[in-house]
Amino acid sequence: MSTEVVSSSIPRRSVTMSKIHPLAPISGDEIKRAVALLRAQWPANTDIHFKAITLLEPTKAEAIPYLNAEKNGSQVPHIDRRVFGNYYLRRTNKFHEFVANLDNETIEYNVRLGDDFHAPIDGEEIFAMEALAMADEAVKAEIAKLKLAEGTTVIMDPWPYGSDGANDEARMFMGFLYARPPNHANEADFNHYALPLPISPVMDATARKVIRVDRLPTGKDNTIKETQPWKPQPTNEYVPEHQKLRTDLKPLNVSQPEGASFTVTEQGTLNRLQWQKWDMQVGFNQREGVVIHNVNYDGRQLFYRLSLSDMNIPYADPRSPYHRKSAFDLGDAGAGSMANNLKLGCDCLGSIHYLSATLSDDTGAPMNMENVVCIHEQDNGISWKHTNYRTQRAAIVRNRELVVQTIITVANYEYILAFIFNQAGEFTYEARATGILSTQPIDENTEVPWGTVVHPGVLAAHHQHIFSLRVDPMIDGHANRLVYDEAYAFPRSELNPHGTGYYTQETVVEKSGGYNLDFDKNRTFKIQNTNVRNPINGKPVAYKIHAPPFQKILADKDSFHYKRAEFSDKNIYAVKYREGELYAGGRYTNQSRGGQGVRGWADRNENIVDDDLVLFIQFGINHTPRIEDFPVMPCEMIKVTLKPVNFFDKNPAIDVPPSTQEFNRSTLAAEAKVGTNGEIACCTPSSAPKSNL
Amino acid sequence: MSTEVVSSSIPRRSVTMSKIHPLAPISGDEIKRAVALLRAQWPANTDIHFKAITLLEPTKAEAIPYLNAEKNGSQVPHIDRRVFGNYYLRRTNKFHEFVANLDNETIEYNVRLGDDFHAPIDGEEIFAMEALAMADEAVKAEIAKLKLAEGTTVIMDPWPYGSDGANDEARMFMGFLYARPPNHANEADFNHYALPLPISPVMDATARKVIRVDRLPTGKDNTIKETQPWKPQPTNEYVPEHQKLRTDLKPLNVSQPEGASFTVTEQGTLNRLQWQKWDMQVGFNQREGVVIHNVNYDGRQLFYRLSLSDMNIPYADPRSPYHRKSAFDLGDAGAGSMANNLKLGCDCLGSIHYLSATLSDDTGAPMNMENVVCIHEQDNGISWKHTNYRTQRAAIVRNRELVVQTIITVANYEYILAFIFNQAGEFTYEARATGILSTQPIDENTEVPWGTVVHPGVLAAHHQHIFSLRVDPMIDGHANRLVYDEAYAFPRSELNPHGTGYYTQETVVEKSGGYNLDFDKNRTFKIQNTNVRNPINGKPVAYKIHAPPFQKILADKDSFHYKRAEFSDKNIYAVKYREGELYAGGRYTNQSRGGQGVRGWADRNENIVDDDLVLFIQFGINHTPRIEDFPVMPCEMIKVTLKPVNFFDKNPAIDVPPSTQEFNRSTLAAEAKVGTNGEIACCTPSSAPKSNL
Repeated sequence: MSTEVVSSSIPRRSVTMSKIHPLAPISGDEIKRAVALLRAQWPANTDIHFKAITLLEPTKAEAIPYLNAEKNGSQVPHIDRRVFGNYYLRRTNKFHEFVANLDNETIEYNVRLGDDFHAPIDGEEIFAMEALAMADEAVKAEIAKLKLAEGTTVIMDPWPYGSDGANDEARMFMGFLYARPPNHANEADFNHYALPLPISPVMDATARKVIRVDRLPTGKDNTIKETQPWKPQPTNEYVPEHQKLRTDLKPLNVSQPEGASFTVTEQGTLNRLQWQKWDMQVGFNQREGVVIHNVNYDGRQLFYRLSLSDMNIPYADPRSPYHRKSAFDLGDAGAGSMANNLKLGCDCLGSIHYLSATLSDDTGAPMNMENVVCIHEQDNGISWKHTNYRTQRAAIVRNRELVVQTIITVANYEYILAFIFNQAGEFTYEARATGILSTQPIDENTEVPWGTVVHPGVLAAHHQHIFSLRVDPMIDGHANRLVYDEAYAFPRSELNPHGTGYYTQETVVEKSGGYNLDFDKNRTFKIQNTNVRNPINGKPVAYKIHAPPFQKILADKDSFHYKRAEFSDKNIYAVKYREGELYAGGRYTNQSRGGQGVRGWADRNENIVDDDLVLFIQFGINHTPRIEDFPVMPCEMIKVTLKPVNFFDKNPAIDVPPSTQEFNRSTLAAEAKVGTNGEIACCTPSSAPKSNL
Repeated sequence: MSTEVVSSSIPRRSVTMSKIHPLAPISGDEIKRAVALLRAQWPANTDIHFKAITLLEPTKAEAIPYLNAEKNGSQVPHIDRRVFGNYYLRRTNKFHEFVANLDNETIEYNVRLGDDFHAPIDGEEIFAMEALAMADEAVKAEIAKLKLAEGTTVIMDPWPYGSDGANDEARMFMGFLYARPPNHANEADFNHYALPLPISPVMDATARKVIRVDRLPTGKDNTIKETQPWKPQPTNEYVPEHQKLRTDLKPLNVSQPEGASFTVTEQGTLNRLQWQKWDMQVGFNQREGVVIHNVNYDGRQLFYRLSLSDMNIPYADPRSPYHRKSAFDLGDAGAGSMANNLKLGCDCLGSIHYLSATLSDDTGAPMNMENVVCIHEQDNGISWKHTNYRTQRAAIVRNRELVVQTIITVANYEYILAFIFNQAGEFTYEARATGILSTQPIDENTEVPWGTVVHPGVLAAHHQHIFSLRVDPMIDGHANRLVYDEAYAFPRSELNPHGTGYYTQETVVEKSGGYNLDFDKNRTFKIQNTNVRNPINGKPVAYKIHAPPFQKILADKDSFHYKRAEFSDKNIYAVKYREGELYAGGRYTNQSRGGQGVRGWADRNENIVDDDLVLFIQFGINHTPRIEDFPVMPCEMIKVTLKPVNFFDKNPAIDVPPSTQEFNRSTLAAEAKVGTNGEIACCTPSSAPKSNL
């Protein structure tokens, strides 16, 4: 791929940039420098358990002049490089945050947080907790009661402990156990989720010891039985070598003989991505994974920052310990640190560009995350078509999309997360939920209304997935407002004598708060800039939000689930921008208590009209498992789309070249190949062989 | 493409079929025979204006034994071929229906319908009405008042007249006029919708004369002004030769080097389509366009018949004559008769198989409709993925889909309609709305709340698109029921001490009626067969319905819009099957009065539990036009998906071969080509050139 700017409509930068772009994720070298600065604050040989070490993004007051200068080709101001990090003194509950200034080589901030704040889980802990539990005598004693067959492997997935207010001040893990039977002993990719065991060790993460071994309810109610000998159950594998694979699927290849239409220009660790009038910068961090900065279209400002803010997955089973299952996959773990290494030809088709990233491990060492983002184009059918019925001439354009995708694995579960841009000026955030259901043992011939039996002896509890997409807009500038349109029937009148008429009405959202959709009114939220008017119809330029409905969090308002999942009860939270308010559930969600997230920010009741508006757009699934979701779940897909409304002066995809056979080179299904010039002409009728039975 | 059955899981039929399959659309020869039989009923030289001549599908009582015999390979019963048709005695209001039996060469039925029934519009009329109006002296006189520049062409699009109860008993058309200025005189594909004129001729379709010339309101209210000299406005073209086309879009080709994975077997004019365990028969008719019959998956029955039943597009402008604009694109015109001739490489990518059809013209002559259906496969991203975090091994499968697509043009507007099947046993109906907005003149500097100015002097009125998908299920047999699940929070109790638990509850829909979604309860409708239980969890086999919410019809309950659009007020209508009840708005929607459609069928309050259930699933858009929707509209896409729920015993896509580079042959964006064996190995990290600005 060339690094040349391919479109003449995108101005080439003419001024030398400062060495490191202020939005560039920190490099491995910067991680080392920040760690060295922080270590110097402590006595030598202090054992520090690092959590995240990440770019502290510049304030908007700093970044906007920089980005404007960059865009205009003028001299960019200097912005100090700052690193944000957090850490424990290892094996203590002393949780700290720090900020290192790499320009003046100082630690600007280094404080211990209160005991209520718990760091997210990291990779070191996940393996350590499993090893710890498996070596624990009390756990072994409880497992022994299962009388598992000789050679059975017991596996433990650690889970964030959650919050219920009952002796849960310490940072803990709960573990769920599964069996791998002796005849699968050497299969590391055996699906242990098909064989859950009724034992749940609880570990103190600080003391690194098992503090309790819970037994799981397996019946219709919350009775906890003594651990009984385990009755072997059938297996249920997802890896291909255990399947009788279909043999009748023929290849479908996406080829881009002239390469991709996008350009990636590396700005250090930041990637400027240009495609079809879009221009943006792609970052990556431990918490959010992909972050899209500074999105412009044809030179016009659209979004200052786009990211997945968090997601919450509360489970339906009311019984202990399941009542604590409520994961925040970004806040409790991290979309960056859980990102998959993507493989060519496996995770996307066509001409792919991969981005790698550098995060840090628990020792503060840089950790390379290879190919955690893929960028590619895809065809999404027809963009627009019209056939003149008088002449029979069709004008038709296809809908090419640009996809910036990452895939995260959070223990059993996967999310495929994509930022998608098209040629009609539309941005879509797409989330696909897949992976393996979180399972638990259930007695034979037992049904419960909070879950589905997906395998003999295996219950998959209902759960909600509630995502929060953070959109920091700059629709033709940073002073934006949130409004919504609704449609109402006209009453009968002289104007509307036949009762057929209706009208739309716009309402301005005056104050920060949580707001809901209302499909019965066709309520449609728009981000508007009233200072810029459409040249044809005089309407304020705007982008509207298409978000699907979802059932809000079901846990009651006094529950910790509800208090912690601050974004889970409204379709949209609209707030006035403040520095650092990126995470809708609060910065630290692990065993959180609530009160640190977007619900509180909204309660400030601030003016958000023609101000620096930030939106958190929620979407989700109430996942009632089907047996079809096991042993691995066909993707459930949800999309949020932002579309221009009176922002352009006509269809922005009107100038996309027409869809022609010469360009697309399709074939008749009867034919193996199309000529090199696509000489199976457009309009040739099908000549597939015919047969009558 | 081979006509061999490609999957061993699909049994090959071993018994000779009767000559013509009972579900096969009628052929040109059959049209001629039916017409000859009908003509023989009338004196020689009676001038008959035919409307539709189409297969009268066999009753279920006949068809089911046939299909069962066909499936089992036993001798199929004989079913008489019957043709349904309707016609006028030309230039009269004498509208008739007939049924011809081609086996015994009789007319079994031939009756004149009441004066309230009006036939749909046909192609002959569309051109005749325009010519008639343009030649009319009163129309010319009114146009003269516009003082159009010499050489201006005036164009008229005829519209169904609609119903308002005011002297609207006769079958009429209303026309909307547009200008093509002299400097575009030779451009037949000029976009006249950008230049609407304030005159609307009304034609008597029977007498074939202009009976009135309405003037259009162009201000803020319903004042009708004297026709004023027309002020020239700018043009707004959609054809590519008038655009400055983008030059930076590179080709994206879909190649299927081994051909398509589906098999089409012609059964006369019926097409048996087999793909990835799916087996179905594809028909086509004048009214519905594509009809999918007899859908089986892996030998199990799923759907007896799938079709778009109708759609309604009521407009918001309350003023005369716009208050009558409420189109039924299937009932008033026909998805078959309006179907586009699809072009290779334009309307879909990859290996395409086209189906052609035979309809009839107004003289009763067969009319070839070339390439009105395309069948192809598409890749829709990832179907499922799981990465074992312990081994880092990813198992991943792509989501291949089979698409049966047709595109219809209804004057200014287009719909892209697709039946989509995937490897996880899911069926999706996808509708994309595109084409050109219906426009009307508006005074300068005028805004109205029922429309958007999309071009100088041009208003696009708000309108609703309400689609009705007819699903005749046979989930493991014909006795099915409709149920819905809802999710509720548990009250606090000993079982739910922390207020976190919730449960789902199933409700049986006992009686025919109209039912709504409720996202706040996560209400999910399922088609269930309680006689067949899942072997693992004992739940009844079912398919659930994912349908998006939409604002129901806004016209008030006493309006003709509401009465006519019988399906427009509920998300789902569930009825007990009766022969011939295919069209949710009634058989004849043109100037209809209501009372002939699904609302009335539902009102029979019949038992629908474990009976022959039929569903009409509604979905739609309240389209508030944006300027971005002009001069041609980027697709607005809506989908309804039916997914198995406890129908299979695990993920039905578990046996799809893994997604590998050898199979998919992707490339790094930096590279032009992949080797013939896909030798850019899976897992090779990106080697794209790097540059620092």
